Amino acid sequence: MIKLNKIKQLQEILIKNKIDAYLITTGDYHNSEYISDYFKTRAYMSEFTGSAGMLLVLQDKAYLWADGRYHIQAQKQINESVIQLMKQGLTGVPSIFEFIKKELKENSTLAFDGKVVPANMILSLKNILPHINLKYEQDLINQIWEDRPVLPFSLLYKYEEFFTGKSFKDKLNDIRTEMKNNKCDYHILTKLEDQAWLYNLRANDVLHTPVFLSFTIINENQCHLYIDIRKIDKNIEKYLRENDVIVHDYFEFFEIVKTISHKTILLDENIVSYYVYNNLKLNNIIKNRQNPSILLKAIKTPAEIENTKNAHIKDGVAFTKFMYYVKTNIPTNNSLTELSVQEYLENQRRNQHSFVDLSFETICAYKDHAAMMHYSASKDSNAILKPEDFLLVDSGGHYLDGSTDITRTLALGPLTDTQKLHFTTVLQSVIALSEAVFLKGCKGVNLDILARGPIWKLLIDYKCGTGHGIGHLLSVHEAPNGFRWQIVPERNDSSVLVPGMITTNEPGIYLENKYGIRIENELLCVEKATNEFGEFLCFETITYAPIDLDAINVNLLNQQEKDWLNNYHKDVYDKISPFLETEEQEWLKEYTRAI
Amino acid sequence: MIKLNKIKQLQEILIKNKIDAYLITTGDYHNSEYISDYFKTRAYMSEFTGSAGMLLVLQDKAYLWADGRYHIQAQKQINESVIQLMKQGLTGVPSIFEFIKKELKENSTLAFDGKVVPANMILSLKNILPHINLKYEQDLINQIWEDRPVLPFSLLYKYEEFFTGKSFKDKLNDIRTEMKNNKCDYHILTKLEDQAWLYNLRANDVLHTPVFLSFTIINENQCHLYIDIRKIDKNIEKYLRENDVIVHDYFEFFEIVKTISHKTILLDENIVSYYVYNNLKLNNIIKNRQNPSILLKAIKTPAEIENTKNAHIKDGVAFTKFMYYVKTNIPTNNSLTELSVQEYLENQRRNQHSFVDLSFETICAYKDHAAMMHYSASKDSNAILKPEDFLLVDSGGHYLDGSTDITRTLALGPLTDTQKLHFTTVLQSVIALSEAVFLKGCKGVNLDILARGPIWKLLIDYKCGTGHGIGHLLSVHEAPNGFRWQIVPERNDSSVLVPGMITTNEPGIYLENKYGIRIENELLCVEKATNEFGEFLCFETITYAPIDLDAINVNLLNQQEKDWLNNYHKDVYDKISPFLETEEQEWLKEYTRAI
Repeated sequence: MIKLNKIKQLQEILIKNKIDAYLITTGDYHNSEYISDYFKTRAYMSEFTGSAGMLLVLQDKAYLWADGRYHIQAQKQINESVIQLMKQGLTGVPSIFEFIKKELKENSTLAFDGKVVPANMILSLKNILPHINLKYEQDLINQIWEDRPVLPFSLLYKYEEFFTGKSFKDKLNDIRTEMKNNKCDYHILTKLEDQAWLYNLRANDVLHTPVFLSFTIINENQCHLYIDIRKIDKNIEKYLRENDVIVHDYFEFFEIVKTISHKTILLDENIVSYYVYNNLKLNNIIKNRQNPSILLKAIKTPAEIENTKNAHIKDGVAFTKFMYYVKTNIPTNNSLTELSVQEYLENQRRNQHSFVDLSFETICAYKDHAAMMHYSASKDSNAILKPEDFLLVDSGGHYLDGSTDITRTLALGPLTDTQKLHFTTVLQSVIALSEAVFLKGCKGVNLDILARGPIWKLLIDYKCGTGHGIGHLLSVHEAPNGFRWQIVPERNDSSVLVPGMITTNEPGIYLENKYGIRIENELLCVEKATNEFGEFLCFETITYAPIDLDAINVNLLNQQEKDWLNNYHKDVYDKISPFLETEEQEWLKEYTRAI
Repeated sequence: MIKLNKIKQLQEILIKNKIDAYLITTGDYHNSEYISDYFKTRAYMSEFTGSAGMLLVLQDKAYLWADGRYHIQAQKQINESVIQLMKQGLTGVPSIFEFIKKELKENSTLAFDGKVVPANMILSLKNILPHINLKYEQDLINQIWEDRPVLPFSLLYKYEEFFTGKSFKDKLNDIRTEMKNNKCDYHILTKLEDQAWLYNLRANDVLHTPVFLSFTIINENQCHLYIDIRKIDKNIEKYLRENDVIVHDYFEFFEIVKTISHKTILLDENIVSYYVYNNLKLNNIIKNRQNPSILLKAIKTPAEIENTKNAHIKDGVAFTKFMYYVKTNIPTNNSLTELSVQEYLENQRRNQHSFVDLSFETICAYKDHAAMMHYSASKDSNAILKPEDFLLVDSGGHYLDGSTDITRTLALGPLTDTQKLHFTTVLQSVIALSEAVFLKGCKGVNLDILARGPIWKLLIDYKCGTGHGIGHLLSVHEAPNGFRWQIVPERNDSSVLVPGMITTNEPGIYLENKYGIRIENELLCVEKATNEFGEFLCFETITYAPIDLDAINVNLLNQQEKDWLNNYHKDVYDKISPFLETEEQEWLKEYTRAI
């Protein structure tokens, strides 16, 4: 009955303050992909714990919007006598904007915490609903949430230039050059990954993303960092001082944006919060541009590339040891489970030198579990592994050298012809994209069909992109590069591909209640040749782990595909075998044999 | 010295009328791809006869902008003491807009014939140059051009519903539905192909494009046609009357647009002239939308599809007879030339039943001539054909059944390994696109790499799209479908692909001073299957003519590609051989043999 109380409490506050509706989104002050517990107001108020969703509370009703991934989970978690579920995406279900437009009369008041909603969302809303009053200054949930978690706290550490290949000052200069090109006096940077990248600093504020909560304001001469100063030890303080960074308290940022005036300000309305945007907008000219750091960060430096390749060797060793363990144990050991082998794999990564963290929550999914793209094994779901069917493992590590994201699907026993056809087709998809040669100017939208095409020929589709950019000891999902056949503007993953960008290549086949197959390598974009026809680019695969030969129907591969696989496996053996025990080496020799 | 006089005369008019600059574009009242002689003011004034270019005459200077295709030709044709050539596209050469911005002071007057310039071009110009006065009412060249050709004249004929599969009234209803969906009272239609399509009428006003000069205004109850009424005979008059079409004189259109007021008007600013747009804009609300007829026309009716396939059989017979003639004569007959075989081919088409016209000027290009994409043989250039190297033939016909566009490249003698590699790669490109299976929602930009990819792997590119839409007894280039890897908005050829659309598939390799290879088939978009993953589409190849087996290196083809070619050639033989002489049949059997 606690749910009733929370919603009821909020409704009483609404009535008292003459607010007609209160909107609770899922976000933090930084438009982060993963938000920390402090910001989980929607989950607290609705009990629905999914990674996306919006709650709208009227004075006498409450509605939760959840997307297709979460219809079942949300229905289980919310108290339907208090909150009505809106199954986003189903025909006949209005979007939250449509709903607000229909429910709220002219001159109604809609309130929300403007600090956790990106500006562009509210600008769209205002466009549709010009005659509604917006109150965005207050986080009303703070009045209700008594045992609210505190903001995350972790100490900053320096990420040495040996790993990043570029100093803070050089990066700052690059940003200032872009500010000048856009004729802007100020730049507001709120995205956490971009700031960690800029300062060559890391911390541990967000799960699996080694960043710290902060804001940055850059002008022609100064760089201001807003952060909980307790996170800064003497060394970092000295480093920041030497680099002329002016440090302020984290929350001071929200006050300072009210004082800036008569400036031209570069900011990204998709990222900066409405609160910040609107206060700046009052007295300044806003130029809505992608953060310059987005592209600068995505094009890895030579040092980042070399170090990332080292990270992939470490990661390949960890994965190969894990694969040896599973493949040699599964015929006789009947105590293996999703969670037990997942732990084995995570330990292999932890054993690697300069390991920092997992780069995301491991997906270790047996049989039909793997058909759910967002499955994560829990004590309740934990499947016992048998010597049959597929085990899909999508995992990665952060090392000081860089970050990885790899998927392999293992045959745990004999497969049917259809299973082998599906596995081999996914492999063909991976190969086709890996082998692409293309003119500079191409985007993911041009290349996606190379991977998706072979699967479409089976009249099957995977309902996600083929790949995403990946950060360097940062978020495992990074803009602006990616592979996707339909552009989704808010994802910002359709940029022109440029040498130095790293993008995953992860087509798959997912059959509900049956199985899921995915093979994922990372592709480094490199120069191929320049001639009278233009500048040609191609990819170098930098993920090194065997692709399960037990799952392949060799007869379906043409010679070119066989050559690719044999060359790839030779490369895997050469890079990984020096770091293995003798029996693992022998096994790897067999599993990287030419076919 | 006549050139000096013309420019001088215009400059005197400019001075007298206090006009600082006069802009002469290349266009007609209908934004046509090919303009008739009456409209060739730029060619008349500059002597430059290329298909694109703009002339800007100041009171004391004159400048011609020509694109890369025409730099050499323009330099030869213009009198450089009077007109300065601006080589569009070269670095350092300003665009015409940049140039006008730099040369004309505030409050200068720029004049042009607003009836032949599309509205969007002038809207862009006004955006860049808000403080310039525009005079757009008059065609000043008319005062200079004494022997100006008259407007084209040809009689209208009915294009029977047997061929089109849809009546005028049904098409008009479809357009009115789109007007209603866009909440528009009026629709202004000036594009010639769209009107010929709408009325199920054809004529012969434009070379190789069976259309007639006209304008149309549609509202809820009425349909007004503006046309030179002498083009309408008793039968057509009756047909139009029966269909409630109200006929007016052609030039009355320019007066009537000044009288329309308080309406919401659907028109396409990319097509409608600035003169028409601006007069309507004064008293009405303009909704800038693509003409509804563009998409309606591109999605062929079942009757159009069936008839088009018949056209392709006739065309395939003509081409096969031609190919037989060339391939059997070349070893011994040393009198063949580009023009002689071109004439032979055109005669084969003329011999076909219900032939109407060539669908465009034939490209018959031997050896290095074929490396020039826009080559057309003339008496001066006419090459003698020898039993060696490639002959590229790009040609097509209009039949009452429909229109065709086909390219084949023939080996006239032994080829080098590189030539065979290049031919075989172009064939692989054609096959890869032909075999695509894709989800509904795909555009050309998604699929282009299937054709371009194999050629890119040779580090070669063709500097054009892979294919274009094609009209049904209309223009051989038709919006909005096409294959292109970089979207060019003004081309309007990147729409979603829909069953019923017909698009060419014509990758190529062009090596300057060496040779050009192109293979072109037409692809009909058809439904493949619908299941839980979505609606899958694919292509049916509807061009039936042998692909020269003498030019293929079979060892480079994989089994799937061989299967495609063998199936295709079997289809060609089955469809074409019944219409051939015995010796042609035997030859075709050999040239469509399984490999």
